Amino acid sequence: MAIFRQANSSGLTDVPGFEVAGIHCDIRGKEDGRLDLALIRSLRPASAAGVFTRNALAAAPVRLCRDVLAGGRPVRGLVVNSGNANACTGGQGLSDAMRMRALAADGLHCSEEAVFVCSTGRIGEPLPMERIDHGVAIAAGKLSAHGDAGLLAAEAILTSDTRRKVATYRMETPSGPVMLAGMAKGAGMIEPDMATMLAFLTTDADIEQTFLQEMLREAVDDSFNRITVDGDASTNDSVLLLANGASGITVVRESETAPAFKEALEALCRDLALMIVGDGERTTKVVEIRVSGASSDEDARRAGRAVANSLLVKSSWFGNDPNWGRIMDALGYSGALLDEQSVRIAYGDWESGPAADAFARGRVLTGNRATWKAIVAADRFRIEIDLGKGGASYRIWSTDLTEGYVNFNKSE
Amino acid sequence: MAIFRQANSSGLTDVPGFEVAGIHCDIRGKEDGRLDLALIRSLRPASAAGVFTRNALAAAPVRLCRDVLAGGRPVRGLVVNSGNANACTGGQGLSDAMRMRALAADGLHCSEEAVFVCSTGRIGEPLPMERIDHGVAIAAGKLSAHGDAGLLAAEAILTSDTRRKVATYRMETPSGPVMLAGMAKGAGMIEPDMATMLAFLTTDADIEQTFLQEMLREAVDDSFNRITVDGDASTNDSVLLLANGASGITVVRESETAPAFKEALEALCRDLALMIVGDGERTTKVVEIRVSGASSDEDARRAGRAVANSLLVKSSWFGNDPNWGRIMDALGYSGALLDEQSVRIAYGDWESGPAADAFARGRVLTGNRATWKAIVAADRFRIEIDLGKGGASYRIWSTDLTEGYVNFNKSE
Repeated sequence: MAIFRQANSSGLTDVPGFEVAGIHCDIRGKEDGRLDLALIRSLRPASAAGVFTRNALAAAPVRLCRDVLAGGRPVRGLVVNSGNANACTGGQGLSDAMRMRALAADGLHCSEEAVFVCSTGRIGEPLPMERIDHGVAIAAGKLSAHGDAGLLAAEAILTSDTRRKVATYRMETPSGPVMLAGMAKGAGMIEPDMATMLAFLTTDADIEQTFLQEMLREAVDDSFNRITVDGDASTNDSVLLLANGASGITVVRESETAPAFKEALEALCRDLALMIVGDGERTTKVVEIRVSGASSDEDARRAGRAVANSLLVKSSWFGNDPNWGRIMDALGYSGALLDEQSVRIAYGDWESGPAADAFARGRVLTGNRATWKAIVAADRFRIEIDLGKGGASYRIWSTDLTEGYVNFNKSE
Repeated sequence: MAIFRQANSSGLTDVPGFEVAGIHCDIRGKEDGRLDLALIRSLRPASAAGVFTRNALAAAPVRLCRDVLAGGRPVRGLVVNSGNANACTGGQGLSDAMRMRALAADGLHCSEEAVFVCSTGRIGEPLPMERIDHGVAIAAGKLSAHGDAGLLAAEAILTSDTRRKVATYRMETPSGPVMLAGMAKGAGMIEPDMATMLAFLTTDADIEQTFLQEMLREAVDDSFNRITVDGDASTNDSVLLLANGASGITVVRESETAPAFKEALEALCRDLALMIVGDGERTTKVVEIRVSGASSDEDARRAGRAVANSLLVKSSWFGNDPNWGRIMDALGYSGALLDEQSVRIAYGDWESGPAADAFARGRVLTGNRATWKAIVAADRFRIEIDLGKGGASYRIWSTDLTEGYVNFNKSE
């Protein structure tokens, strides 16, 4: 079944049966005109799936979203603000999130239990509820299925991001087309197991909730859970997928369309995840780390994450320095089974082409040094690590660590 | 029993019965005159204890040191070079380390099995054996018990350190004085469970090996294993303690002197550990993190390490920004049992004085904001974190993350 990536995505409005709005209501209190509130409406009752942060201090809105999902009933919309995470805000935070949801339910003419609520931004500040009250009313009046609205909504969820993150896929099924689109945000506090990231996905397929949830969990595990900027997993991370059935096409388990839908969903999540890691706060490179030959899945994950999160390794990438010795060091303390003779490290271009060995069978391959140096000088490249101890593998995307990152984060 | 910290330490030569030397033999091949090889000689057979890196890719010299210790026989000395770690160097590396040890044994007129060998510096380069051959001979000719020699040896083990690290303690026992001294190096790849750090300790007490090892393990767990600069644990970390009995005073388990010796050893290790973290590559602050109220020792450790290694938390310290919200986030993903109502975070001056609450019982204490801001602006301060879930505690020292660190490490 053919799957196409749409060249110019407008985000959620590319899917029939959804209206969105993105507006400014001055959440940050800076009167800078920055968009900071988005509203999403499904014109039909939609089934929903969600994956959330595992941070023990999950923010109030995350707890409400979990409740909505657990209810298992059709969903009609979602409200989200940027500039304030409504995290570590105690009982006040929970009642503010409930109030924000009630305001959105009013605007969307539906019950509170049919609305998701999300927040992203600064931790520990109470939400400015008067401005949100005003903002939700404005947004409800601007709901539109036009592509411009989709782009404004994608803009309204950003925090330290430097650009919008949207993508759209189209599947040609025997019964007609199915659309799948998403918008995301995230640039700092990015680490596998979610991050200060939000992603909202919509489709006009008709899909039963349990199956939808299962497919979303798998797609998230292979995309948003495989990126790291700084190893910090946040209090607010959420990925939500709404399926409204507007296409009239049903995707059920074991059907011909199911594998194609899964493939499109995974591609959409990977696109958005790479947009997030590619927009890491003041970073300059994206590096794909492919671990193979691990004695277990857990070992492959440990090895990949140790390399992806090593400050010394990440600093060396910033300096265009391959520094395989620091990679060996990180592998050594990762806890994965390996030894000096078994490990192979190779550098390759982004996505394709052969990789040049740097270290193998206990020896450095100095003859290839010019090749790795050229590869590591690029904005994107990959590192292949074979532990030589088994058949398990893992893939993770990371960034370099830059002086700009530290400068950017030294105060809020 | 009275314990004194000596105001001006010369390092290992402060202990009777030890001779040392620190010389230049151009390990780095830069002809810069930098000291890079040290030799330590115990004039009497000494019992020895050692604690080493848990990195799976432990360097060749670390493996030899483990063999020496396992032999359980008296030790006569130690040779160490800086500028080259002799790590990830395969069979060649092991035979080079054995050759280096044999050269030192010649110079010290003892058997190879009585000599420790250590290396620190760049990973993956073969040792320049001709220069080491020459260097060990020069060092053997310069062995001296004079304080100048102690300081030269302390200088010869440094890599990216900006200053020597030495400390000396004196215990007044009923039978006379016992001395305990140490020298250390380390500035990058610093993380609990050891680091690119070396520490060499000497005492003139007479202590049986098993008891010596037990006391060293405890002291290291509470000092060198509680510091972190960048979360990277290296291939070469070693702490070695030689006890030569020159004082004629024996320290045995259950004796009156044992608790005093332990206390002095712990103070010495803590002093050297704090010198290492205080000299973290291009860092500007040392922060003590005290976790209490954890439901288990493991939870206390997890919480402390998550905060100590969070890039966002460390970046905020660099900017004099208390940012308790990022600390909450790190606690939340640490895996420790806690909730928003149970956690208390307070900022205090280095070592003493009351701490000012920033977050407690689910609320931020904005009235104290000026106090925390002033505390965090200092070069050294402490953070108290009470998880409110039990009685376990943990202490760890960390640094800020600076633009200078990234710049320094972007290439070797």
